[in-house]
Amino acid sequence: VAGILVINPNSNIEVTRGIAAALGPLQSEGQRQVTVIGLEGTPRGIESQRDVDSVALPVAERIRDESGYNAYVIACFSDPGLYVAREATDRPVFGIAQAGLLTALTLGSRIGVISILSTSIPRHWRYYRALGVAASVAGDLALGVGGAELADEGRVGERMEATGRALVESHGADVLVLGCAGMARYRAPLERSLGAPVVDPTQAAVGLAQTAASLGLVTR
Amino acid sequence: VAGILVINPNSNIEVTRGIAAALGPLQSEGQRQVTVIGLEGTPRGIESQRDVDSVALPVAERIRDESGYNAYVIACFSDPGLYVAREATDRPVFGIAQAGLLTALTLGSRIGVISILSTSIPRHWRYYRALGVAASVAGDLALGVGGAELADEGRVGERMEATGRALVESHGADVLVLGCAGMARYRAPLERSLGAPVVDPTQAAVGLAQTAASLGLVTR
Amino acid sequence: VAGILVINPNSNIEVTRGIAAALGPLQSEGQRQVTVIGLEGTPRGIESQRDVDSVALPVAERIRDESGYNAYVIACFSDPGLYVAREATDRPVFGIAQAGLLTALTLGSRIGVISILSTSIPRHWRYYRALGVAASVAGDLALGVGGAELADEGRVGERMEATGRALVESHGADVLVLGCAGMARYRAPLERSLGAPVVDPTQAAVGLAQTAASLGLVTR
Amino acid sequence: VAGILVINPNSNIEVTRGIAAALGPLQSEGQRQVTVIGLEGTPRGIESQRDVDSVALPVAERIRDESGYNAYVIACFSDPGLYVAREATDRPVFGIAQAGLLTALTLGSRIGVISILSTSIPRHWRYYRALGVAASVAGDLALGVGGAELADEGRVGERMEATGRALVESHGADVLVLGCAGMARYRAPLERSLGAPVVDPTQAAVGLAQTAASLGLVTR
Amino acid sequence: VAGILVINPNSNIEVTRGIAAALGPLQSEGQRQVTVIGLEGTPRGIESQRDVDSVALPVAERIRDESGYNAYVIACFSDPGLYVAREATDRPVFGIAQAGLLTALTLGSRIGVISILSTSIPRHWRYYRALGVAASVAGDLALGVGGAELADEGRVGERMEATGRALVESHGADVLVLGCAGMARYRAPLERSLGAPVVDPTQAAVGLAQTAASLGLVTR
Amino acid sequence: VAGILVINPNSNIEVTRGIAAALGPLQSEGQRQVTVIGLEGTPRGIESQRDVDSVALPVAERIRDESGYNAYVIACFSDPGLYVAREATDRPVFGIAQAGLLTALTLGSRIGVISILSTSIPRHWRYYRALGVAASVAGDLALGVGGAELADEGRVGERMEATGRALVESHGADVLVLGCAGMARYRAPLERSLGAPVVDPTQAAVGLAQTAASLGLVTR
Repeated sequence: VAGILVINPNSNIEVTRGIAAALGPLQSEGQRQVTVIGLEGTPRGIESQRDVDSVALPVAERIRDESGYNAYVIACFSDPGLYVAREATDRPVFGIAQAGLLTALTLGSRIGVISILSTSIPRHWRYYRALGVAASVAGDLALGVGGAELADEGRVGERMEATGRALVESHGADVLVLGCAGMARYRAPLERSLGAPVVDPTQAAVGLAQTAASLGLVTR
Repeated sequence: VAGILVINPNSNIEVTRGIAAALGPLQSEGQRQVTVIGLEGTPRGIESQRDVDSVALPVAERIRDESGYNAYVIACFSDPGLYVAREATDRPVFGIAQAGLLTALTLGSRIGVISILSTSIPRHWRYYRALGVAASVAGDLALGVGGAELADEGRVGERMEATGRALVESHGADVLVLGCAGMARYRAPLERSLGAPVVDPTQAAVGLAQTAASLGLVTR
Repeated sequence: VAGILVINPNSNIEVTRGIAAALGPLQSEGQRQVTVIGLEGTPRGIESQRDVDSVALPVAERIRDESGYNAYVIACFSDPGLYVAREATDRPVFGIAQAGLLTALTLGSRIGVISILSTSIPRHWRYYRALGVAASVAGDLALGVGGAELADEGRVGERMEATGRALVESHGADVLVLGCAGMARYRAPLERSLGAPVVDPTQAAVGLAQTAASLGLVTR
Repeated sequence: VAGILVINPNSNIEVTRGIAAALGPLQSEGQRQVTVIGLEGTPRGIESQRDVDSVALPVAERIRDESGYNAYVIACFSDPGLYVAREATDRPVFGIAQAGLLTALTLGSRIGVISILSTSIPRHWRYYRALGVAASVAGDLALGVGGAELADEGRVGERMEATGRALVESHGADVLVLGCAGMARYRAPLERSLGAPVVDPTQAAVGLAQTAASLGLVTR
Repeated sequence: VAGILVINPNSNIEVTRGIAAALGPLQSEGQRQVTVIGLEGTPRGIESQRDVDSVALPVAERIRDESGYNAYVIACFSDPGLYVAREATDRPVFGIAQAGLLTALTLGSRIGVISILSTSIPRHWRYYRALGVAASVAGDLALGVGGAELADEGRVGERMEATGRALVESHGADVLVLGCAGMARYRAPLERSLGAPVVDPTQAAVGLAQTAASLGLVTR
Repeated sequence: VAGILVINPNSNIEVTRGIAAALGPLQSEGQRQVTVIGLEGTPRGIESQRDVDSVALPVAERIRDESGYNAYVIACFSDPGLYVAREATDRPVFGIAQAGLLTALTLGSRIGVISILSTSIPRHWRYYRALGVAASVAGDLALGVGGAELADEGRVGERMEATGRALVESHGADVLVLGCAGMARYRAPLERSLGAPVVDPTQAAVGLAQTAASLGLVTR
């Protein structure tokens, strides 16, 4: 029966818990169980390119070591280690940025991304271009909330809505993607207040992983 | 609890049955039930642009009438009626071409499409461009099997493999999409013989629909 | 001698008359006569995707039935039924959106489109992408005039100019296309006031149709 | 009444005559008369970049001097002097490459260009990119006929057909453009033998010029 | 030993001197000497398309006549005569626009261009498209300083900074290119005040020319 | 005076020596000295994605530690650690793939890349897309020489020529890039035999680094 392994590449246990909490609806009785783990010894948040590059090998090595799963999800919006992990297993490995963006394109045609940090945005754009979807990204805007404030759910919710509204109204987005793992609790309220579909990328990736696992998909 | 409604826009009951047969793995106990229906009074196969355009409104009207479902899937690789159906419901509607292509891009980066008829290929390319994914489509080749031969599973399987191999070896595809509904039984053997992931688009769409239903996604 | 058949897919006879009135200069003595017809039983305006899809087959069937013409023009900016109509005849069929946009690119390189309704704009963009010209469309802005106001020529003229000016000055357009049939009377005044070429798409399509007819062009 | 001025930028009077001979169908009684002139002191054929650049100013100066026309056509597939000519008049100026390519896109979606010389092809591609249509050009192949052989109509016709067939069958073109002025006599036979529309670019440009003249179009 | 020949295509000796003054750092002892010349009988500034086209052949002829150099640089941001010059020599010829833009992409990924005249900007965009880099140009803004004011270094410096800041802050540029020859003295101060790399295109081209000369590069 | 630091990320001292040997012409008397180092503890060759990701941080850390240089070059065609290295210094850092490709576009417009291993090619294409130059890459072909054979200069030279010729003649490349560090000795012979410019990417990057150093360029 195995299951789906979701790896949060950072060492912040709150984020790992937030991810796990959002995946209940995606593991019904007959489906594969979803296991969410964090990594020890990695940064508490993946913010700089250094953070991204520092977790690529640990992510891939963990996937290689945890070889019994049907599919894997890397739960960080920079998809660290995605391609090296694919060398390490013949089961499908999903990156949440890739999964979230492509799922969004089944719901709309102009994506707005809500990022946490403005410094990540140039890195995101390099990746959007590498994936071949840059022309479908209407905008990528930072939340403008940092540090301790990120724990203030009300404050984050307000900024989510304001940022999402700017993406829809000024940038022409018709579907939104949360540009971070662990923010799923904002998905449904944002969808309701904006009247546009909102994708939590970890949920999107786990959905794809469940489908792949159900079908017995192998990637080589 | 509702469920997922899959509409085969043609009136060929064999195709409807073939679709239904392939969806077992995607409706585990706790997930929404998947109902597959055909349409009466539509062509037996959706081949020409006329066929595509003639089923657009019937598909959308059926979706409007069957209003209790959590998500809808239009099971024809031309995605007939996709945008008009989206006007008719606030639940997500997935077209299998769109869903299959975007799912494929989570597994590889150069898509090869195996189409039934060569006459559909220019129409496919217009759609790949409209979706913004044309640059990621390495090739779209026709099976070269027609009429009665399509019932000869051995013959179709041989042509599937030959066509898939041409897409991988000559066009550089690293993931394949079956460009038709009702061909899912060829998916796993093709994947094994080619060593590259193969996507059945109806399965991909139903997977996305299950995820969307589990999350309570609404599109406006 | 035959001639050119222009089909207004809606049932608003005022629009049909407006189209006909603008085509005088394009049927000089030795050229094919241009016949403009509306369709009965179709919507009074083509506004939603449903409207578009509902007229596709009627347009194509009318073209098939009126088989003696040298060329055909579908006079609605969504080009409903264009590809199905091309299956129905071996004479060229022009859609006014396609014809207007491509003619505009012989006069400038950054197109601004003035649409009637904002709800049509996402549909337009899907089409611009399908045609491969999206990168040359600087903007598509709605007139912001609806219902009864559309009969107020002064009001419409003012909004045309304001919208056109926004496209030129803020979006960098250097050529404008009227995103609707039946608006030709605004073309010349707008061109004079903005100092940039303005294309009425029905005139553009009829011009192309006259050329094709003169040359005896067949499409298969 | 004025008219349309077509300028053949080379000094080969046979080419000028060939152009004029093909324009009869595009100047019916009520339309503007079309005048075709060559330039003296220019190369006998426009083959190298040097040839192209050497005729840019002479073309523009002639247009400035012949100020009474309603529209102008530059009849060489490199569109020499197009943008400088547009500085010299407020009447529309059409280049045949631009006009031929964009007209072709109203008849098909994958253009095949038949060029005379292989050395012109890189220059053509720079121009296709500048126009924003490169992604719609399926291929540009040289005729492989040079010098004296170009006068052998049978030989050229054979090569036209072979080259056009290669573009359709191997490159996926669904509409062809003759990549040269003065080849119009091959248009209709090629269209018949290949079953795909074929555009003579000078005819396309003169058609657009007639339309523009009929409408009184001004470009600034 | 030969050297690098830099041709300022205009006849303004102040510009020629400004170019020469900025190239000292790029001709160290063991490198090829850089010779900067202007052309007589050309416009004092290259502003219109006519100016550009009028200097194409004189530039190429001068390069053909000065045949002993290792590499050539055409020092005008419209790269006049670049392709015809390449026909005239088997040594590399660099245009400063091309060299400046491509060098910029080794330092950042979203280019902002500071142009002198707004009327040059549409011409620039045609060229960005022809080079295949248009999608990497975040913006091209004019300095808004003309005529005699261009001699006022303080005034120009202020406008440089304001324009550069607008490109970085509103258009998302992360590297700037001075869209003109002879402006190198503003490079370093602008880089310091904006905190983003700034490329003087003539310096970039001479750098590439020195590298090519050191390696003995031949282009055919 | 400082200088340029070139880092070969692998631990094969022969490659490091091969790189150093090719840089003599790029460090003339008055220019910055070029220092070439390898890294210890890294793979002997950078072949897999794992190899690439494993050297990213070591490269960046070495650059941070060697803080006195004017510019840095990462001498591996996968540009490992390029963006993390840019976080570690305010001096320019050049990756040889990026530098080689963009330099090639100043010499031609259709790049052919000669790679060592076919398994690297999908990774290359992801990077070409991320850089925004994929549309200008005509092809990327593997040498088809492995292991011990790579030491056989005659054999490698033959394959270089055959592969380069295929890129020029079948893929339409007009400029070639060697897709590897340490192959510079094949550059000039290949250029002579093919009659098209050939870029060694390490030389290209060092050339850009020398220019940047001469100008005192800082990147933030």
